[in-house]
Amino acid sequence: MFRERLAQDATLIQDHFDLVLGALDDLDVTQAMAYATQGGKGLRGFLVLESARLHDVDTARAIWPATGIEALHAYSLVHDDLPCMDDDDLRRGRPTVHLKWDEGIAVLAGDALQTLAFELCTRSEIGPAEIRAELALSLAQASGAQGMVLGQALDIAAESADSPLTLEEITHLQAGKTGALIEWSACAGARLAQADLAPLRQYAQSLGLAFQIADDILDIEGNAEIAGKRLQKDAEAGKATFVSLLGLDAARTRAAELVEQSCAALEGYGASAETLKDAARFVIARDS
Amino acid sequence: MFRERLAQDATLIQDHFDLVLGALDDLDVTQAMAYATQGGKGLRGFLVLESARLHDVDTARAIWPATGIEALHAYSLVHDDLPCMDDDDLRRGRPTVHLKWDEGIAVLAGDALQTLAFELCTRSEIGPAEIRAELALSLAQASGAQGMVLGQALDIAAESADSPLTLEEITHLQAGKTGALIEWSACAGARLAQADLAPLRQYAQSLGLAFQIADDILDIEGNAEIAGKRLQKDAEAGKATFVSLLGLDAARTRAAELVEQSCAALEGYGASAETLKDAARFVIARDS
Repeated sequence: MFRERLAQDATLIQDHFDLVLGALDDLDVTQAMAYATQGGKGLRGFLVLESARLHDVDTARAIWPATGIEALHAYSLVHDDLPCMDDDDLRRGRPTVHLKWDEGIAVLAGDALQTLAFELCTRSEIGPAEIRAELALSLAQASGAQGMVLGQALDIAAESADSPLTLEEITHLQAGKTGALIEWSACAGARLAQADLAPLRQYAQSLGLAFQIADDILDIEGNAEIAGKRLQKDAEAGKATFVSLLGLDAARTRAAELVEQSCAALEGYGASAETLKDAARFVIARDS
Repeated sequence: MFRERLAQDATLIQDHFDLVLGALDDLDVTQAMAYATQGGKGLRGFLVLESARLHDVDTARAIWPATGIEALHAYSLVHDDLPCMDDDDLRRGRPTVHLKWDEGIAVLAGDALQTLAFELCTRSEIGPAEIRAELALSLAQASGAQGMVLGQALDIAAESADSPLTLEEITHLQAGKTGALIEWSACAGARLAQADLAPLRQYAQSLGLAFQIADDILDIEGNAEIAGKRLQKDAEAGKATFVSLLGLDAARTRAAELVEQSCAALEGYGASAETLKDAARFVIARDS
């Protein structure tokens, strides 16, 4: 049920990207933007669409911020992969944008994907201006120097630090780096319905941390071909991770506990939250 | 009058940056963000504040989008200066961000400055949600792959083109690259007041083109020390510019005509538009 829904939603979002990007001039930079949006799991967009369904919000409205958050995620990957950042050759099983084109195009395509994210979150098709302004403001707060970029900056600072990060510091770093956008995505449905954000926020905070622990486990145990990206990066760089600090078994146990907490936060929604709960179970079972 | 007002507004905006950036964690990336916002003329922010005054909009509201557009402009400069883009060492008379720190910090600081721009344009202090959603949406459209980034992409494409650009093509390129943000800035006051955008839009379109022609003249005739940036770049790169296509005298005449058109567009506002008219006259007389 969950995997089908995830795939269906990814197709909806890809079709929406085609519509939106198809309206732009055909240039290297717009081709690179389209390329960068392809082939992902679409977990963040799925969280937007599914949390919207949970609140009976029409998919025709929710598809805009769902595509927006995938544009924002794509921008962060294109820039993260640059030689001056993580210097990665492979992303989603294909050459990274700066290899397929060049670094200038990768910088520009990432920039334009970020801009596109804010355009998509404020489009009039979404509904009342109050909702659109709130979506954009919260997205900026989740992705900027208090959210995702803060996490990336702490990650860079950790590389030149004298001692490896503590568990508390890594938790803080990851809450920004991956947690903030996952939280934004899961809360989007409640924002679209102007409903209480608290249950989805709690769901997402546990989910986001479980997601990162699973990523650290995948980095150690995964198959690069299946994952579609370079693995063992953290170990090679001598970086502290949840696995290096907790050990593999305790990390697995902690991730499973977090998934349980995540599911418990949605109890109030009854059976209609089943797909979101499945999503939480999926993040610790995935191989890519 | 105009130069004083420009300097006063630049101080207001710088103080607002201090307030906003001072709330962030003290890291290389946030220091680089602050550095990148310093030392500019602040023309775009001035246009926001002055067009707001023209509509009796309180500066306490307008300072948010005024600081936002300067954050967006700063992001575009930091990324433009990167080795994979224009590869510049000097900006506003100081080392560029990637030299003062490194390329990774420059990418990240630029990214976070773009995000900050959208945060500042949607902050609740600005007023009604309708205005905030409209400011953010129009900023995204002006700065993304249909606006500023389109202009930059056309500029890159022109470098590998077989023949130099025509006057029409350069006008289209510049309307995106510098024109769209100048237009957004000048229209912001009318947006804040929910007034008719047409006169300010016309003012800004002529102003933006005059600004670019003046930039091309400055690139040929200017003093790099006063300008605070590398000059003669376009000539060295063999790029077509307004000056190479029109000749220096005709380019000067065209810029002066455009400034007259720009001023004429504001006739309906009477004497209160005098500072904005002075701004138009300034853009073709500046030396930096």
